[in-house]
Amino acid sequence: MRKRLSLQAYADGIRSGNRVILSQAITLVESTLESDQDLASELVQSLITETGKSIRIGITGVPGVGKSTFIEAFGKLLLDNGKKVAVLAIDPSSQLNRGSILGDKTRMEELSADKRAFIRPTPSGTALGGVSGKTREAMLLCEAAGFDVILVETVGVGQSETAVKNMVDFFLLLMLAGAGDELQGIKKGIMEMADALIINKADGTNLAMAKKAKIAYESALHLFPLAEKNWSPSVKLASSTTGFGLEEIWELVSSYERQMRQNGFWESNRANQRLNWLEDQIQFLLGQAFLKDPVIQKMLTDRKPKVQNGELNPSKLAKSLIQFFFQK
Amino acid sequence: MRKRLSLQAYADGIRSGNRVILSQAITLVESTLESDQDLASELVQSLITETGKSIRIGITGVPGVGKSTFIEAFGKLLLDNGKKVAVLAIDPSSQLNRGSILGDKTRMEELSADKRAFIRPTPSGTALGGVSGKTREAMLLCEAAGFDVILVETVGVGQSETAVKNMVDFFLLLMLAGAGDELQGIKKGIMEMADALIINKADGTNLAMAKKAKIAYESALHLFPLAEKNWSPSVKLASSTTGFGLEEIWELVSSYERQMRQNGFWESNRANQRLNWLEDQIQFLLGQAFLKDPVIQKMLTDRKPKVQNGELNPSKLAKSLIQFFFQK
Repeated sequence: MRKRLSLQAYADGIRSGNRVILSQAITLVESTLESDQDLASELVQSLITETGKSIRIGITGVPGVGKSTFIEAFGKLLLDNGKKVAVLAIDPSSQLNRGSILGDKTRMEELSADKRAFIRPTPSGTALGGVSGKTREAMLLCEAAGFDVILVETVGVGQSETAVKNMVDFFLLLMLAGAGDELQGIKKGIMEMADALIINKADGTNLAMAKKAKIAYESALHLFPLAEKNWSPSVKLASSTTGFGLEEIWELVSSYERQMRQNGFWESNRANQRLNWLEDQIQFLLGQAFLKDPVIQKMLTDRKPKVQNGELNPSKLAKSLIQFFFQK
Repeated sequence: MRKRLSLQAYADGIRSGNRVILSQAITLVESTLESDQDLASELVQSLITETGKSIRIGITGVPGVGKSTFIEAFGKLLLDNGKKVAVLAIDPSSQLNRGSILGDKTRMEELSADKRAFIRPTPSGTALGGVSGKTREAMLLCEAAGFDVILVETVGVGQSETAVKNMVDFFLLLMLAGAGDELQGIKKGIMEMADALIINKADGTNLAMAKKAKIAYESALHLFPLAEKNWSPSVKLASSTTGFGLEEIWELVSSYERQMRQNGFWESNRANQRLNWLEDQIQFLLGQAFLKDPVIQKMLTDRKPKVQNGELNPSKLAKSLIQFFFQK
């Protein structure tokens, strides 16, 4: 059996930047055991005033766009700039995606070997509602351990982007040049969530095409509204092989941070994200308690087909299920 | 006091296409009285096999884009094509928006005077979770009353677009030419939900600018992915004053229906929407029961500031609130 430390031992280990204890603490956060979860919540709470000092960057893009190599190269640049870097992945469906996220750790060989970096994949096969809360707690633990930049990676094909967008300060969308078929996998709405678009693999014979794609995306983004934070998303080129563009992306993120701190969006956004986290968790836990009920489960399974084919009024069914649930 | 009919009287009246009884039945659907809601659910259930035969079209756009006049003109065209048209509005914040939606009924004077049309605003000041369920039930009642086309109007500034997108077959986004400042009000993500973009007020001195905007939007949409239904959103010009473009928009909707019925998306989308409705209602009712609890209310009010400023772990608070809620 996995050994469990005391609250104090976890907290001290994390404060001292011990990556092994940080890793064990995240395992505790991810545990489905009630007692583990309680201890994890206490741990996060005891460290909470030491969190929040990092820059949180979300990174998304379809499989094949080169997220892992980008993170490896970008992460190394950050280390060179004196930053400590943690990489977390959120991907509730990673089993289906055959380990496209961090599964193949060798893709980030150099980064994961460096003591100033910390790389942590999501446990696969978990429901999104649970995962996002756990990733948020893992992020706070990384911050308490002294990491300056948190990179949260997600695959651009599901609902996890909204979850990641709601927990980061800056959201990067990686794309490829050749803007036709490559885009098919990107879910609608993701492009409009991005604070910056990166045309990745902008090197060698790809470079000319990447430059063209940049212009096309810039004119498309021009049509997009500015959000409440008064930020126009820009399009940048990058190559993980040559390192081209990476410095510029980091400068962009830094200038974003400066601007958003100045106009107050940085803190108001984080305050909103914390409330959103609370609401998310309440909804998730309510739903979980409801769906755990065996009679509810059976009633749902029995009646679902009649809802789908339009024979049963969904409002009526919802109401009778809720009445049943609370009257027991 | 408002008189309440019997289930049979409501059902018979609706089946016979009686607009007064239809209107009373929708009032029943919208009622916050438990007994009214139960009767309403029964009524919808008793008519449910007579629903689903209309084309459901969502229409959105910022205030000032000309939604009401567009719906008036488009609705009249549909009447001329032998269709019976119902217009519903979903706008949970209509009090704030000062009646921008259907509040000013005179804007649809001719349509509302026509016996083959039915116009119904949303009661203002209601929470979205409740409104969307009620609008869905109202829509089914309109279908049972024989309306062939249901236009669901919403203001393009809030979360109601997602709710409307989830209850219609086709989603129209109205825009204005001059693509700069006018767009500021459109929420991110809405453009990518649209099955068609309409550049409205394409008449007189606006026409040239509208044609230019059309080209710009077409090239922007070109970068967007095709959704699972294999449909490329197109950009059309329209004028409610001259009637220009309206016929073409109706042809577009009809051709969409043909294609989607053929590839199976029409029915699978509706089946998904019904399940989504069920899930929405369950989440809404669970949340409602939770937030109705006075102790929960007080705990939330007390602790919210500490969540916002980052002193309190949201996961921990959510968990303790839920535990408290279910242990009473």
